[in-house]
Amino acid sequence: MDRILRINMGAEGGPKARVEPLGEYAGLGGRGMTSSIISREVPPLCHPLGSENKLVIAPGLLSGTGAAMSGRLSVGCKSPLTGGIKEANSGGQPAQVLGRLGYAAIVLEGSPGGQDLYKIVINKDGVRIEADNSLRMLPNYDLVNRMREQYGDRIACISIGPAGEMKMAAASVACTDPDLRPSRHAGRGGVGAVMGAKGVKVIVLDDTGFKARQPKDLEKFRDANKRFVEGLARHPVTGQALPAYGTNVLTNIINEAGAYPAFNFKGGQFEGASRISGETFAELETKRGAGPTHACHRGCVIRCSGIFNDRDGKFLSKQPEYETVWAHGGHCGIDDPDTIAMLDFLDDNYGLDTIETGVAIGVAMQGGIAKFGDARAAIDLVHEVGRGTPLGRVLGAGAAVAGKVFGVEKVPVVKGQALPAYDPRAVQGIGVTYATSPMGADHTAGYCIATNILKCGGFVDPLKPDGQVDLSRNLQIATAAIDATGMCLFIAFAVLDQPDTFQALLDLLNSFYGLELTADSVAALGKNILTMERDFNSRAGFTKEHDRLPRFFSTDSLSPHNITFMVKNEELDRVFEW
Amino acid sequence: MDRILRINMGAEGGPKARVEPLGEYAGLGGRGMTSSIISREVPPLCHPLGSENKLVIAPGLLSGTGAAMSGRLSVGCKSPLTGGIKEANSGGQPAQVLGRLGYAAIVLEGSPGGQDLYKIVINKDGVRIEADNSLRMLPNYDLVNRMREQYGDRIACISIGPAGEMKMAAASVACTDPDLRPSRHAGRGGVGAVMGAKGVKVIVLDDTGFKARQPKDLEKFRDANKRFVEGLARHPVTGQALPAYGTNVLTNIINEAGAYPAFNFKGGQFEGASRISGETFAELETKRGAGPTHACHRGCVIRCSGIFNDRDGKFLSKQPEYETVWAHGGHCGIDDPDTIAMLDFLDDNYGLDTIETGVAIGVAMQGGIAKFGDARAAIDLVHEVGRGTPLGRVLGAGAAVAGKVFGVEKVPVVKGQALPAYDPRAVQGIGVTYATSPMGADHTAGYCIATNILKCGGFVDPLKPDGQVDLSRNLQIATAAIDATGMCLFIAFAVLDQPDTFQALLDLLNSFYGLELTADSVAALGKNILTMERDFNSRAGFTKEHDRLPRFFSTDSLSPHNITFMVKNEELDRVFEW
Repeated sequence: MDRILRINMGAEGGPKARVEPLGEYAGLGGRGMTSSIISREVPPLCHPLGSENKLVIAPGLLSGTGAAMSGRLSVGCKSPLTGGIKEANSGGQPAQVLGRLGYAAIVLEGSPGGQDLYKIVINKDGVRIEADNSLRMLPNYDLVNRMREQYGDRIACISIGPAGEMKMAAASVACTDPDLRPSRHAGRGGVGAVMGAKGVKVIVLDDTGFKARQPKDLEKFRDANKRFVEGLARHPVTGQALPAYGTNVLTNIINEAGAYPAFNFKGGQFEGASRISGETFAELETKRGAGPTHACHRGCVIRCSGIFNDRDGKFLSKQPEYETVWAHGGHCGIDDPDTIAMLDFLDDNYGLDTIETGVAIGVAMQGGIAKFGDARAAIDLVHEVGRGTPLGRVLGAGAAVAGKVFGVEKVPVVKGQALPAYDPRAVQGIGVTYATSPMGADHTAGYCIATNILKCGGFVDPLKPDGQVDLSRNLQIATAAIDATGMCLFIAFAVLDQPDTFQALLDLLNSFYGLELTADSVAALGKNILTMERDFNSRAGFTKEHDRLPRFFSTDSLSPHNITFMVKNEELDRVFEW
Repeated sequence: MDRILRINMGAEGGPKARVEPLGEYAGLGGRGMTSSIISREVPPLCHPLGSENKLVIAPGLLSGTGAAMSGRLSVGCKSPLTGGIKEANSGGQPAQVLGRLGYAAIVLEGSPGGQDLYKIVINKDGVRIEADNSLRMLPNYDLVNRMREQYGDRIACISIGPAGEMKMAAASVACTDPDLRPSRHAGRGGVGAVMGAKGVKVIVLDDTGFKARQPKDLEKFRDANKRFVEGLARHPVTGQALPAYGTNVLTNIINEAGAYPAFNFKGGQFEGASRISGETFAELETKRGAGPTHACHRGCVIRCSGIFNDRDGKFLSKQPEYETVWAHGGHCGIDDPDTIAMLDFLDDNYGLDTIETGVAIGVAMQGGIAKFGDARAAIDLVHEVGRGTPLGRVLGAGAAVAGKVFGVEKVPVVKGQALPAYDPRAVQGIGVTYATSPMGADHTAGYCIATNILKCGGFVDPLKPDGQVDLSRNLQIATAAIDATGMCLFIAFAVLDQPDTFQALLDLLNSFYGLELTADSVAALGKNILTMERDFNSRAGFTKEHDRLPRFFSTDSLSPHNITFMVKNEELDRVFEW
């Protein structure tokens, strides 16, 4: 990982690749890499779909090594959804493969002049960029099957579906899992639209002939990894809940807490919650011959992903994540697991962020386009997105645009990005993260649910404003750092609660790179990333007035706690004072 | 005009009117009144369609008097299109009638709970607010005919069409002309959507039994008015060009100057310009038994409006304004006068801003929704807007949303509002106004065309960046002041060039109110209004990064001058330094 692969899609005579040394970007990985390149090289006021924007794809610092959980990929750009800087993060195989191929980043630059659609193949023979218009408008699953036929089973793919080709602001970048399913997505912020604007349909990676990256101190690295894996196994969230039920274990928990935003944030509990809970899904999955315990990349020991078969025992989709189950489920008043799994599949196949798409559908329901609870309508609407009808394009442009188009007042977005599955009135900490993250509303940017609800890393009362700013600040800093390592964010549960697991993580980094990082240097890394991101956003025109939740969270109270979001604006403005 | 009429549409038990003294708003009119009330009373981060926004309708300081040209009405709110403060300005009869009825402003507040649609009738019997759901989705012309049947010929109407009811961000507020045609519009910024969100379909005004407002010094006032009217008649623009051809006299002039943005700002000249010029329209109008010289309100002596009959000699629409002819014409590659007049009528009837709608259609054409030049498609698209189909709702949400939905990179908007009919690359002064006006892109906010092209008020070379900031600053200040008087902005041509006509304007104000205003006090008024507006926008999250043109104006050069927009960002930031 000592090189950057830059591909100028707008070069004279057709796209051209060039390999560069890391230079000023040495020592960076994942979100640290993407946000550095975007922040330094992209004009903040450029059009996100224009030639001045760049799409940066970066494995983390430990990706491609033998470290467990190190398979996260960062995808960065100026977001077509928010207009600000974006890092969207995905599991799957590509980060590991890219790391072994030796690339710390792929940077797609410029814009192709014509209408051609390109395929990029990176393997032991180098980098090949080919126009292949036969791929046009292929859904992700068909596309990956086609690549498998051409390039064999050892590949990993990074691709866009029709949504990305149509440059929709809800378009994702898909990554294949170990079974070559394009089911892991860098979902948020429209990164797929930027890949589409670059004219790149798929990047095919094959690390045949390459070895795992070697640590400076192999023995220490192995020892650290052992302690790290043991720590993850020991913690109840990473060792039990996530493998048994996946992230959807949260449906019952969040609903119990009265923080489940039902019917477009109308109430904090959903009657149908138990019918779409992780427990229900796991039982169904097992009964139908699949199951809830599956790794999204080789080297994952938590195995929170899963497989959902249909009634006939045939693969329907991956096990939908909690936020997907919410966005397509309770948010729209839908409580049928098969419908939700189908919607999950359609989103993956068309290449859509499940959160943005589901929330946009709920906003459209609020605007009268369909009835809440109408499962058939929801499926039809996602097909409209995939076909690119005018209605589909509205939904594919995300919840904020859908709200504007349908004249809806209650639109749950911050910086133009849809709020995920936790109502900030009943989990005040996550409200601080939604409001202030440079990414727009994003639960993963500082997952206060951990401490507000799951009581990991201590406990801060979710129903009171006190302590939430400090909590969100600390988690946003820690998250930015973890997002730079290539580590799955879910390690945070064990790392927050178990000092020896945190030490094992530091030891992994130190033994691999020959460093002497401490907790302080990790915090410094996180702060550095957030500072760069906020600086970009500031130059793009963002102010403290953009670090606010929509006003209805402060004016309309949420059942059953009858509570509003109470963290004051002046408090929100203190999040980045460190 | 010593009272404010406040109507709380969300009052317990149904909408309630209350009449208040002017209080802190004494001495304000037009844009001074609307921007003061919005700035002081509306939370800058509220949702524009929510109960916290207000719609303020205010005649100018001289409206309802015997002063010529004093029939302009200001309509203000937080804009659903820009998210910032908005004053949209209209001709027609209502300002005069409202002035005589004694109201310095009508303020629509709150939100009605239910689905009822309301009619407000204001006459010698007082204020009546009635639910009348039979008016639902009536186009403006049918609506006004219905009101005429019910309330007689002496009324003036302020109304919304289906677009406003559907809360579209391109929805206008229509005002009737002396012939009771709803053909004059407060077009920009979606003021009609806010009226729709307040549940108000129409305000019917009848000043039967009221007299013209009386000046403090009648003799001086009459004398000033005489000098004022003479001055307007003497100036070639207000005395000859505008009465003969209307605003569309500009098509040939701007096209000659290479500043006519054709095919969505692709080039600076349009081959079909002569076929849709003011000269061509005037000839056609005369031939078909109508004509180009008509007053939009009683007391107008310029008479730049006109009537356009169809091939059978029947009324088709008012004479379309230059910006309409451009937006529906050259911007979309259309050069057929009958098509453009039909589009003008449809916009007026559905209640749409012709600029925003036309530009959105051009952006949709850029996105492949229809072919440039396809007149039939353009008409169909406006009908889609009127019917509220998904595609229509996208266009009705304005050019910025259309660009997002259709994945278009070249979207000519500032602060979310579409640029009008003058390319800022070939008229650099107007680019400064577009970029910096608190209203978003708006030619009327500081009409540098006057000095850059028409050589009124001196001459500043349109193709050079030098002097444009000073020009735009001075015109923005003067415009804000004129917009407070109720005077038609077109008086500015004579006022800029003829010191005695400017003095006559001051004398009108001074003799009416018993004041001693000077040029300096007028400038102070303008600065005060702009300062309030910018303060509101700042609290709504706007920064200097929002005072920029889209980047393509700086990167892509415009034929035939092969020129880009060259005013530097640091220069733009000096516009409001006075």
